[in-house]
Amino acid sequence: MRPPDPRTVRSRAAALTSARELLVEQGLAGLTHGAVAARSGISRATLYRLWPEPPDLIQATLTWHIVLAQAPPSGDLRADLITALSATRAMLHEPAAEQGMRVIIERAGVDPRFAEVKESLHHSGTRAVREILTGAVARAELPAELDIDLALDQLHGPLFFRRLVAHRSFDLDYVHDVVEDFLHRHRTEPTRPQGST
Amino acid sequence: MRPPDPRTVRSRAAALTSARELLVEQGLAGLTHGAVAARSGISRATLYRLWPEPPDLIQATLTWHIVLAQAPPSGDLRADLITALSATRAMLHEPAAEQGMRVIIERAGVDPRFAEVKESLHHSGTRAVREILTGAVARAELPAELDIDLALDQLHGPLFFRRLVAHRSFDLDYVHDVVEDFLHRHRTEPTRPQGST
Repeated sequence: MRPPDPRTVRSRAAALTSARELLVEQGLAGLTHGAVAARSGISRATLYRLWPEPPDLIQATLTWHIVLAQAPPSGDLRADLITALSATRAMLHEPAAEQGMRVIIERAGVDPRFAEVKESLHHSGTRAVREILTGAVARAELPAELDIDLALDQLHGPLFFRRLVAHRSFDLDYVHDVVEDFLHRHRTEPTRPQGST
Repeated sequence: MRPPDPRTVRSRAAALTSARELLVEQGLAGLTHGAVAARSGISRATLYRLWPEPPDLIQATLTWHIVLAQAPPSGDLRADLITALSATRAMLHEPAAEQGMRVIIERAGVDPRFAEVKESLHHSGTRAVREILTGAVARAELPAELDIDLALDQLHGPLFFRRLVAHRSFDLDYVHDVVEDFLHRHRTEPTRPQGST
């Protein structure tokens, strides 16, 4: 693969910045190729080539955040969960990502193209926590019978509910509390090394 | 207050039915007074009188569900939580209510009128569980230091996340699991009546 043309990279960055501003100010209704072109100075033709439809633009915005949020697990269950959910917390408090998620939640209910984008983002957005949980089960720090899908909901659900439904902001203490309650409920008793058993 | 004119009740029901259908089929974009008038046969003048703006229509749809969901707590913590969250589950699986919530989550981010509707629905929608938790704290079945707002997120959050973000349906077993994990983590040890202490 050739390195991308620097002009394309600049156009792409300028267009995404304008798209994110429009999304925050006006929601999906304001996110048209015409409005992005007018604000960014990038031609409509270029915009249609980069992101044929509005879902592509929203996906581009959120993917950027999710990629930032990925860090390889260290093997310390508590620390890894806090790192992953702190990244989710940051995304939920970044205006364009937050509004992008709101738009996707609405549109995925009625528009198959958005439902696909939603599916892909949900998959990549929960992969980190899924890997952390699977690893902890393999190390017997979480029980083998743990319902991983339910655990994902119990870890992500409170954050999404508080930000997108209750519409409140929250700090890292909140993330700690959610992780602590989860571990208190599910973590197996640590097996201490003993002499003979 | 005079009893409502039966014609008004019929118009209102017909219009709400059409509004709910449009919401499910097309999301907010399809929910215009013109489209509701065309489908229901109710005049636009009547529609504007009943619900001046689209947020009013969506609020009317969801309020109906939330009112249905309210039952006075019996005092049995587990049973009351399961009853309340089963109603939330039913609402999340009723197409018009589900899409109404999706629309509100999106619009509340950018439109103050929808933010008000969201606030009012969030308040009435979480009141039942709040009362159940407050009662259980008063009876010392839950600890006095319980963070009630966090508990609300831990009980509602997984349901909303699974339905609106993961986009999966779930049954009553799921509600039982969420309640069971919550009680396992937070419920105080039952004080058994004893002879002398």
